[in-house]
Amino acid sequence: MAALPARVEIHEEGPREGFQIEPPGFSIADRAALVEALADSGLTRIQVASFVNPARVPQMADAAELFAAIRRKPGVRYTALWLNEQGFDRARATAAVDLAGTLYFYASDAFSRQNNGRGAAEQAQGQRGWVARYRAEGLAIESAYVMTAFGCNLEGAISEERVAESLRFIAQLQQDEGFRLPAVYLADTVGWAEPRMIRRRIDLVRDLLPGVRVGLHLHDTRGLGMANALAALEHGVDLFDASVAGLGGCPFCGHAHGGAAGNICTEDLAFLCEQMGIATGIDLPRLLDAARLAERIIGRRLDGKLMHSGLPQAQLPEAAR
Amino acid sequence: MAALPARVEIHEEGPREGFQIEPPGFSIADRAALVEALADSGLTRIQVASFVNPARVPQMADAAELFAAIRRKPGVRYTALWLNEQGFDRARATAAVDLAGTLYFYASDAFSRQNNGRGAAEQAQGQRGWVARYRAEGLAIESAYVMTAFGCNLEGAISEERVAESLRFIAQLQQDEGFRLPAVYLADTVGWAEPRMIRRRIDLVRDLLPGVRVGLHLHDTRGLGMANALAALEHGVDLFDASVAGLGGCPFCGHAHGGAAGNICTEDLAFLCEQMGIATGIDLPRLLDAARLAERIIGRRLDGKLMHSGLPQAQLPEAAR
Repeated sequence: MAALPARVEIHEEGPREGFQIEPPGFSIADRAALVEALADSGLTRIQVASFVNPARVPQMADAAELFAAIRRKPGVRYTALWLNEQGFDRARATAAVDLAGTLYFYASDAFSRQNNGRGAAEQAQGQRGWVARYRAEGLAIESAYVMTAFGCNLEGAISEERVAESLRFIAQLQQDEGFRLPAVYLADTVGWAEPRMIRRRIDLVRDLLPGVRVGLHLHDTRGLGMANALAALEHGVDLFDASVAGLGGCPFCGHAHGGAAGNICTEDLAFLCEQMGIATGIDLPRLLDAARLAERIIGRRLDGKLMHSGLPQAQLPEAAR
Repeated sequence: MAALPARVEIHEEGPREGFQIEPPGFSIADRAALVEALADSGLTRIQVASFVNPARVPQMADAAELFAAIRRKPGVRYTALWLNEQGFDRARATAAVDLAGTLYFYASDAFSRQNNGRGAAEQAQGQRGWVARYRAEGLAIESAYVMTAFGCNLEGAISEERVAESLRFIAQLQQDEGFRLPAVYLADTVGWAEPRMIRRRIDLVRDLLPGVRVGLHLHDTRGLGMANALAALEHGVDLFDASVAGLGGCPFCGHAHGGAAGNICTEDLAFLCEQMGIATGIDLPRLLDAARLAERIIGRRLDGKLMHSGLPQAQLPEAAR
């Protein structure tokens, strides 16, 4: 067991993850208010929207408008997701987007084909173009994601060797292109990770990309999200993606038995950290306000736990205990 | 970190926890079918109902009838909960109840007063009467619970010393009354535990009651249930209470922000164990059937995760990967 980190950084993904999976039609005003509430809670990086094909993802067609509507808080980065040049161009043309150079690798060949229309090796080679493009724009590369790094609903279990291939490619790419990569995220895109696997794959990153910070992008698909987060924290990981209120889960879509599963829940993760003495920089009561705002906007009970139970506190005055 | 147990024992609490918190009126046939489905999944101990005041808990007024309706599976114990002599007398008079001698201690004085009308010390002394009663009935004492062993919504945080007081009392009681206690459960009754606390309090039991098996009764009130379970597993604990589908949680009752929280979810816990190589004796697909049956009976989306996502499996034939 490594030492617990003294402080963790949590990147909020809810505004994108959450509204991407819901039917279109949520107002700009509501979604901007949620982003503002998240920023007010002390989160310093919030993924607001994606710039993707509006014909396929109509929920995100108004991404530029949403960015323009947000009252910005100093010190907070408002990021976006893009998957191709067209999307990047739109994000770049939107003044309020804090562009972050991100590379995407896939440990699963079949999942890469499904998402990108090309296999994992070709997708990896394609990242050379992004390195060049980001450089041309004067944009630093901030992170690389290894998607489906634990398993894939198409291929099944993903071996350590497959993840190692992605990581070795990243190491080679850094050398070829002469850039320094600050962070690599292992993404449990569809919920195949378990705690032992989490620790071994963190070690793998540390072996193959020494000095690169390890981040985790976890989904709570099969109920192991928080156990996996604990395993990572206790293995020294200090960088996580998460979604307020567990946004991104949806009882009506996706999986065989009626539900897609969201990212691990931001406020539950932050609560775990704070309870274990790990600083998050987050004001939990304010983050709970944001989670409850998300629930009012979505109009359906969301998956977060702490938002429904409240922070632990004594109800009796001292004298009566 | 202790070695992971090779095998864990999970006691099912859903039929009691779940239907106690719902409005009355669920049929005997449905509830018996759920108990039978749970037994068919390989669970070997199922708490079916409680024998408590029917005026206060009308949901459990038909406990004897429910027990009588269950098609029993050999090797499974069908247990009940009681809180006073009257309840015990009713349980004892019900042929199908597998009586298990259980003692209840409270680390929180205020919580004990609320539940039992007497403080923690008086409640502890009261357990002497139960030791005598069980002995008179020829019933072995199987376990003792320390309720609110981590914190309490009335008193707030519960110190290690308060838990130690309960444990020392139990040690003394064993000595005074000359019985051997097989297991002590630490109960996080209202969701105050976090992983470090879990480990320290397990150590405390091992120090003060050497040789006694430690069990955990965890609630997922604030989202840390599975992280706490992982901490316990990795600290060598092999005995847990849990509720199928997370039964016992209820969005409409209990807490300040609209929800009571159930026990940790049986199938999600069993999945965590199996994924980590720990045997549970449970047939997970069958347990998922039982969880989905529970959801159909309750008629509302339940909190379990795996029941909605399904077990991880590849969707592509080998050749296409």
